[in-house]
Amino acid sequence: MLEVVPVNEAAEKIKAAFAQNNKKSETVPLSEAVGRTAAQNIVSRENVPLFSRSVMDGYALKAKDTFGAGDSIPCMLNIAGEILMGQEASISIGNGQCVKISTGGMLPEGADAVIPVELTEEDIGDICLVYKAVSPFENVTAKGDDVAEDQVVIKKGTVLTSAHIGVLAAMGQEKVCVAKKPLIGIISTGDELTDITEKSAPGKIRDVNTYLLSALTEKYGGIAKKYGIIRDEYEALLSALKTASEECDSVLISGGSSAGTRDMTARAISELGEVFIHGLAMKPGKPTIIGKIGGKAVFGLPGHPAACYFVTEILVKQLLHLLLGAESKENYAICKISENISSNHGREEMLCVRTENGIAFPLRGKSGIISLLSQADGYIKIDRDCEGLQKNETVKVYAL
Amino acid sequence: MLEVVPVNEAAEKIKAAFAQNNKKSETVPLSEAVGRTAAQNIVSRENVPLFSRSVMDGYALKAKDTFGAGDSIPCMLNIAGEILMGQEASISIGNGQCVKISTGGMLPEGADAVIPVELTEEDIGDICLVYKAVSPFENVTAKGDDVAEDQVVIKKGTVLTSAHIGVLAAMGQEKVCVAKKPLIGIISTGDELTDITEKSAPGKIRDVNTYLLSALTEKYGGIAKKYGIIRDEYEALLSALKTASEECDSVLISGGSSAGTRDMTARAISELGEVFIHGLAMKPGKPTIIGKIGGKAVFGLPGHPAACYFVTEILVKQLLHLLLGAESKENYAICKISENISSNHGREEMLCVRTENGIAFPLRGKSGIISLLSQADGYIKIDRDCEGLQKNETVKVYAL
Repeated sequence: MLEVVPVNEAAEKIKAAFAQNNKKSETVPLSEAVGRTAAQNIVSRENVPLFSRSVMDGYALKAKDTFGAGDSIPCMLNIAGEILMGQEASISIGNGQCVKISTGGMLPEGADAVIPVELTEEDIGDICLVYKAVSPFENVTAKGDDVAEDQVVIKKGTVLTSAHIGVLAAMGQEKVCVAKKPLIGIISTGDELTDITEKSAPGKIRDVNTYLLSALTEKYGGIAKKYGIIRDEYEALLSALKTASEECDSVLISGGSSAGTRDMTARAISELGEVFIHGLAMKPGKPTIIGKIGGKAVFGLPGHPAACYFVTEILVKQLLHLLLGAESKENYAICKISENISSNHGREEMLCVRTENGIAFPLRGKSGIISLLSQADGYIKIDRDCEGLQKNETVKVYAL
Repeated sequence: MLEVVPVNEAAEKIKAAFAQNNKKSETVPLSEAVGRTAAQNIVSRENVPLFSRSVMDGYALKAKDTFGAGDSIPCMLNIAGEILMGQEASISIGNGQCVKISTGGMLPEGADAVIPVELTEEDIGDICLVYKAVSPFENVTAKGDDVAEDQVVIKKGTVLTSAHIGVLAAMGQEKVCVAKKPLIGIISTGDELTDITEKSAPGKIRDVNTYLLSALTEKYGGIAKKYGIIRDEYEALLSALKTASEECDSVLISGGSSAGTRDMTARAISELGEVFIHGLAMKPGKPTIIGKIGGKAVFGLPGHPAACYFVTEILVKQLLHLLLGAESKENYAICKISENISSNHGREEMLCVRTENGIAFPLRGKSGIISLLSQADGYIKIDRDCEGLQKNETVKVYAL
């Protein structure tokens, strides 16, 4: 039996043990890439735009031809033709010439700027009168201005958002190489559990963790494989754990609430591999076991759903990010706490809060009330060395 | 042609026009309910827990039998048996009796409290010595303490998170009635567009908006139906729009960048229905058209991807929430702006920022550089009446 370890120490141990795990990647169509993690730096194979474009409806010209032009002394240019939208500019212009162009049109060879149509006037004999001087590159997006060919646009480890999908489309990226979703085996243990598909019965409680852990696994970018409810019988647990650790990239066992079940989980992990954390200095979440089998992470999570939720949110999420090679970004809002909070004496505490107008209201209830989770929109972390929080003190609220 | 309207006025018009649209619902298994919107209040059909449970390993007893007990004067109780985990408590206890119970075990009839095992000692003849008094309900979670039968646990319009899935599992909710995902038709227009699956060519640019709008539609809870690229030809657009507005719950047309294409979009919407906004006082996003066909919302979005992104984020998201009946929650972080920002003279501006340690750094570039979106992690809104922002002023940063 190991000692109860602080949360940051557990996080370090997880990093040390699993950061080097082999990362698998796969190629998916752009339409399916949102939410996935880039498995390599994404380099543009094209300039965006592919050619210099007009950002105005007007005339493409040589800027130097307009120098000195003004309201009372227009310069006169010959209109050499028109560039049609979406077509290659086959015309090239010489000194004293211009071509008609619309927004987005391809700049013809020889032109380096565009004068907006409202600053010009057409005259007979294909003459354009220009009433203002323009500088080189004025009203033009030059080739590669947005994204240059061979530029790294998205770094390895980036979790792709809708905005990234847009940028990748602009680059003509039909497919994207992303981290393969880790397969996470989920086992619930306990004689007292009934599945939601079964009728409830006295003495039994619902298996919450199979559903909670599956939802969280998918939220963090993995795929959940459910192994169902395993009764409190050592051989049954050992056999399920063996199968799951062979089939999956990691296994989450959520233990029954009794000490006996927890010991059984630790024993089964030890028999097939190694336990390196047994007990976490976190409230809720103390009865947490972390180990490995064949280099794969195995978590023995608290049976109590609220505790199971927080250990998963804090440590299993980190594991998933390591397996995906994903950049972790802390996502929190800064709020003020609505009341004094007492300290925890050596255990880091996760406290559910409801936020309103920048104020965080702690939600309290008997230890382990799962309905608190449905009323909260976030949680705060109270450090194990914290001497308590003062009313109106600033806190970080992490979204649930 | 209508006048350019402020963003909040556009939002009000959208609400007035589409909030009453018929909402469709469907029933899905709990495992598929995360991210979906509850279509009705969800009421618990069960008490959670279903019976009073011990939260300790110890002995269930009548609290009054322990009154007066202390370290030096234990009370003596007869051990009447043991409650096995996950089984109905068939024993009932009388005065002076107790039963052995483990954490999560069902409290037997007659018992109203639990004494933890470490405060007791077993003696010969099935006697339990209790060294501390307990109060009624001490160390017990009473039936319905977490969720009471018939209680509304999740309100209609709630977007279900992993935590809600956990609560629903605890209630034995195998299926959930959720809002049906609205089907959103997506049309890109413009002779200059090539799909990402095609080879790039001079004069052409990539169709970004089909992919961007599909990703955003799915992010906001809809299903995207792609109608591909429609050339700048009125009859082709009219026919695609007619089909899409018949098949889908709403249609998003992203216009080419030229004024001609935009006018064509407005004309086609008017021919099949009605245009009620033509021009938005937003930067980027001015060339936005909003109308309806057969009561369904149709957006003519700017062709420029960055502008298209922001109009979608601000107004199409709102539409999706209305169609889903989903509660909208603003999700932003409070940051300080890193530099002075000048005012916009009558147009609300959306400015991409990168955040670091609570400071928002504006990202600048030529108007409409899409790669800015991939470098930003959020944006700020600068009000149309704002006289500019001062360095270190507090701003709301909305996540991209």
